[in-house]
Amino acid sequence: MLLTRQDMPTIPVEARQIFREGKWTDRTSGLCLGFTNAAIAIMPRDQAFDFLLFCQRNPKPCPLLEVLDPGDPIVSDLAPGADIRTDVARYRVMVKGEVVDEPSDLTQHWRDDLVTFLMGCSGTFEAALEGAGIVPRWRQGEETGSGIYLTNIPTTPAGIFHGPLVVTMRPIPNHQVSRAVQVSSRFPGHHGAPIHIGDPAALGIDDMSKSEWAVGPKLLPGEVPVFWACGVTLQTLVRESKPDLMITHYPSRMFITDIPAEEQAVM
Amino acid sequence: MLLTRQDMPTIPVEARQIFREGKWTDRTSGLCLGFTNAAIAIMPRDQAFDFLLFCQRNPKPCPLLEVLDPGDPIVSDLAPGADIRTDVARYRVMVKGEVVDEPSDLTQHWRDDLVTFLMGCSGTFEAALEGAGIVPRWRQGEETGSGIYLTNIPTTPAGIFHGPLVVTMRPIPNHQVSRAVQVSSRFPGHHGAPIHIGDPAALGIDDMSKSEWAVGPKLLPGEVPVFWACGVTLQTLVRESKPDLMITHYPSRMFITDIPAEEQAVM
Repeated sequence: MLLTRQDMPTIPVEARQIFREGKWTDRTSGLCLGFTNAAIAIMPRDQAFDFLLFCQRNPKPCPLLEVLDPGDPIVSDLAPGADIRTDVARYRVMVKGEVVDEPSDLTQHWRDDLVTFLMGCSGTFEAALEGAGIVPRWRQGEETGSGIYLTNIPTTPAGIFHGPLVVTMRPIPNHQVSRAVQVSSRFPGHHGAPIHIGDPAALGIDDMSKSEWAVGPKLLPGEVPVFWACGVTLQTLVRESKPDLMITHYPSRMFITDIPAEEQAVM
Repeated sequence: MLLTRQDMPTIPVEARQIFREGKWTDRTSGLCLGFTNAAIAIMPRDQAFDFLLFCQRNPKPCPLLEVLDPGDPIVSDLAPGADIRTDVARYRVMVKGEVVDEPSDLTQHWRDDLVTFLMGCSGTFEAALEGAGIVPRWRQGEETGSGIYLTNIPTTPAGIFHGPLVVTMRPIPNHQVSRAVQVSSRFPGHHGAPIHIGDPAALGIDDMSKSEWAVGPKLLPGEVPVFWACGVTLQTLVRESKPDLMITHYPSRMFITDIPAEEQAVM
């Protein structure tokens, strides 16, 4: 029997137990509020050097929080004892850039040469913005969340990995733009400061009412579009680079860690 | 003919030309003031995944600024066009943890599978402290620079790499300790905030008048010992881990980049 959002526990270790039992495969936003969420990428050891190098060169879209040893599925720092094969609500398995499976359990796909990367996520970051009084309209009743857009900005390639940057867009009232920069700068492990403020066309975004992933809220008078690097960059990276095998979380099903979000802030 | 310190150019590309010509093999501290300095580590591709993972897990002692592609000796971001084989004043070549050569040119040691890592350095960081009014006594006439000490704190191992953390110690007047934390926090790529403030014994440092590398200034009344992670950790790492081949800069002969130090600050 699947659980409802109201039934879900607020403690990460308990929520992960529910995921492990296959009782929750839905979006994780809003679950265990206040705890650091992480994106995951799992791949064979022989691709892992290139990917580690890619993350080093592109810390804005791919901010590394933890990397497990080859073959080790047990998380150490972010959620001691959690099993990355079972403790995410749903996964996406891609072979040569094509989706081949979207299971709720990775046990059958696991291999002794797989390396797991855990990366920051804007979940952490949005809570901090809200704490600073920058409350998105979707939390005030509007339907639309952040926009997610493909840009014409290339990431810095590394080995087999290359592809364009994907960004999120949040409309921020003029007088709060500085504050949004300050607050997000405190979270370099969760995409950090905006990469661009003000002009979608400069990023190659010609029409913000169109998106492959999510169309953002319309800009109101007195709002500026503010763009942050986005973890969805990983999906375009896989599509363009076609690595032999790449496993990620299913979009919007994040790994929920034991670390309070504020512990991730640098100042 | 070797040059004197007064003859040295203040522009990085010109200083690197002098190093390339073998006309300067001395300490680089004080040269090209205001530009970012970097430590270097060069190793075969088959050790490079472990080392990249080590740096990811230990960003305080080993903060990565740039990693070159396997076989590529030409720096891209930090000093476009610089040749890492010739543009450092002096190198140290270690085979299985033992020093086998300390040349001023790496051309004879270069191989197509070598990967170059450039890491932050407290040179950047000390200039910023000084700018904030925290002027070390060695700049006020005293002989002794920062102390460098071995600790009993293990780094987080990765693959073949393991070993204890090495720290620098600066005596800071009580009323400036907060400011020292604030200023150094702005430079996460150059060791960042202190790892410990106040008690050498808690780090396993029993006698600050003894050090394998550098004994720091004596503490004066009203000063607190403040400890930062140190790039010399790399030397103990190599000694303990005994990788097949590791090439570093010779101690105190840093790679001088084209990047103004302030550009490296996060806020």
